[in-house]
Amino acid sequence: MVLAIDHIAIAVADIESAAKRYSEALGAEVRFETVESEGVRVAIIPLKNARVELISPINETGSIAAFLQKKGDGLHHVALRTDDIGAEVSRMKTCGLEFLGDVRGGSENTKIIFIHPKSLNRVLVELCSGGE
Amino acid sequence: MVLAIDHIAIAVADIESAAKRYSEALGAEVRFETVESEGVRVAIIPLKNARVELISPINETGSIAAFLQKKGDGLHHVALRTDDIGAEVSRMKTCGLEFLGDVRGGSENTKIIFIHPKSLNRVLVELCSGGE
Repeated sequence: MVLAIDHIAIAVADIESAAKRYSEALGAEVRFETVESEGVRVAIIPLKNARVELISPINETGSIAAFLQKKGDGLHHVALRTDDIGAEVSRMKTCGLEFLGDVRGGSENTKIIFIHPKSLNRVLVELCSGGE
Repeated sequence: MVLAIDHIAIAVADIESAAKRYSEALGAEVRFETVESEGVRVAIIPLKNARVELISPINETGSIAAFLQKKGDGLHHVALRTDDIGAEVSRMKTCGLEFLGDVRGGSENTKIIFIHPKSLNRVLVELCSGGE
């Protein structure tokens, strides 16, 4: 059971400007997506082996809005891909890791769950599976 | 010219404890390396398509020590791999990106350079090539 980096998520206040900047800088096309369930608009920039995702809140109540208000633009989380999210969560729980909520549906038929940052040296890690 | 994620770097104060935690959590072996030129000890955890690197200062003068003092443990930078670092830097400069210093030697015969965080929404991005 080996994990892969699926994407790096960067919180941004102005997604249009950031998407243009990152698309030029990384030399890759950008596509946009709105994930209503998470309250975010996402700009997806594909790299060779993973993606960069710029995320911006579509309302003022979610965790991304709070993050931006407190810290401003910057690295938000790292997402790791697994073939079997249920088994991976169980394995990680036996290692003492704590999670934020349960496995839920993400965009494009993915399943996602977030590991509590206190379990991984203040790094927010998403696990994801499916959707490809 | 397509970039790939090479590694995610996480600054940690206690590298032994963090390496044990991450190795267990990610289900992968860890190996250690000291990069004298950068003043850091690194714990490298290979994933399927990239690496997680935990970095800790070996003295109190470097940028990682300053980062830890200011912010504590957490995501530090993202490294992107290119086949031709010189060409990539030139291309990025035409996009208006600014760099921290020049291309220099990294660990294991890599060449590295850091993009200034102000060019990428406060995200510190390393470019690297070679070494494989």
